[in-house]
Amino acid sequence: MSKKIITISREFGSGGRYLGEKIAERLGMDYYDKEILVKVAEKTGLSQKYIEQMGEGAPHKHKYSYSFVGRNSEGVSMGDYMDSMQREVILEVAEKSPCVIIGRCADFILRERTDVLNIFICGNDKEKTDRIMELYKLSETEAHKLMKETNKKRRVHYEYYTEQRWGEACNYSICLNSSDIGYENCIDIICKLAEN
Amino acid sequence: MSKKIITISREFGSGGRYLGEKIAERLGMDYYDKEILVKVAEKTGLSQKYIEQMGEGAPHKHKYSYSFVGRNSEGVSMGDYMDSMQREVILEVAEKSPCVIIGRCADFILRERTDVLNIFICGNDKEKTDRIMELYKLSETEAHKLMKETNKKRRVHYEYYTEQRWGEACNYSICLNSSDIGYENCIDIICKLAEN
Repeated sequence: MSKKIITISREFGSGGRYLGEKIAERLGMDYYDKEILVKVAEKTGLSQKYIEQMGEGAPHKHKYSYSFVGRNSEGVSMGDYMDSMQREVILEVAEKSPCVIIGRCADFILRERTDVLNIFICGNDKEKTDRIMELYKLSETEAHKLMKETNKKRRVHYEYYTEQRWGEACNYSICLNSSDIGYENCIDIICKLAEN
Repeated sequence: MSKKIITISREFGSGGRYLGEKIAERLGMDYYDKEILVKVAEKTGLSQKYIEQMGEGAPHKHKYSYSFVGRNSEGVSMGDYMDSMQREVILEVAEKSPCVIIGRCADFILRERTDVLNIFICGNDKEKTDRIMELYKLSETEAHKLMKETNKKRRVHYEYYTEQRWGEACNYSICLNSSDIGYENCIDIICKLAEN
């Protein structure tokens, strides 16, 4: 197995983004997280902030995206339009050079390729909450609430666009619980698999 | 992380049992798959074949297990009685010596321990079907049907007894797709994690 693309889906607070950065660094791969949004903003002329809000939120959370005013001249909702732009960007960057892509249903978008290693990173509630408290300077209650809400959004977004279940083992090559396994072990395992 | 017990949940055809045997061999651990049934048979006086049929089948598949005639003198159904006996055996063997335990909700039964590495092995339909065809000398149609039925039974059994979702990444320390990763890589990764 020689993998040129690594996609990382992750529970909020599990350190998936951090792992992605470290893996890209170690393997000398390009890294795309918010960089995808910058490219979508360039493509569409929309603000990055707006795109970010539409991003991994569930489609039905954006009450205007499915209404008449939120549709473009071809009747496509803003949510679906943004999703198709994001899809285009992901296909383009995957074609360009070896890279790590965080979230955004990249595993599903690139499913026709055979050189993709699809990862899911999860974690235990305690460790995820602690990490969110530290990173975002929140109380335990606030961090726990933000974790639940963000993971719910990610789940609904993924399941809406892929019709697969988010976090179900069979949709990924490998799933790692970063609280149980530890960040360093996760990085080692993924780099070794990608290099093999 | 130093893990004395490895539990392996697995999709039928994914090679989970084979991996478990190899891991136990390499790490010098005891290995329990059908060995659990032998011990349950000794404990209950019931035949191993009967226990096997009740095993990972869904409780509702055994139409008599919940009827009046299928209950013991305390009104406990045969399915629940067998499950409690199996639970006792799993707790006993885990206490006795380092070991690998295949299936039987061992991850859930041992959830209070901190020295357990919980694994889920899945695979792609094509590779799983091929493996079942070879191992059981079946046609592709028969193998595919057996795979679907067996995995459905395992899912329902697991979800009935644990109230957790079978094959959902967050219930395990690590999930590996043996078709993507390859058996040797799976063995290496698991042994290294258990030894660390």
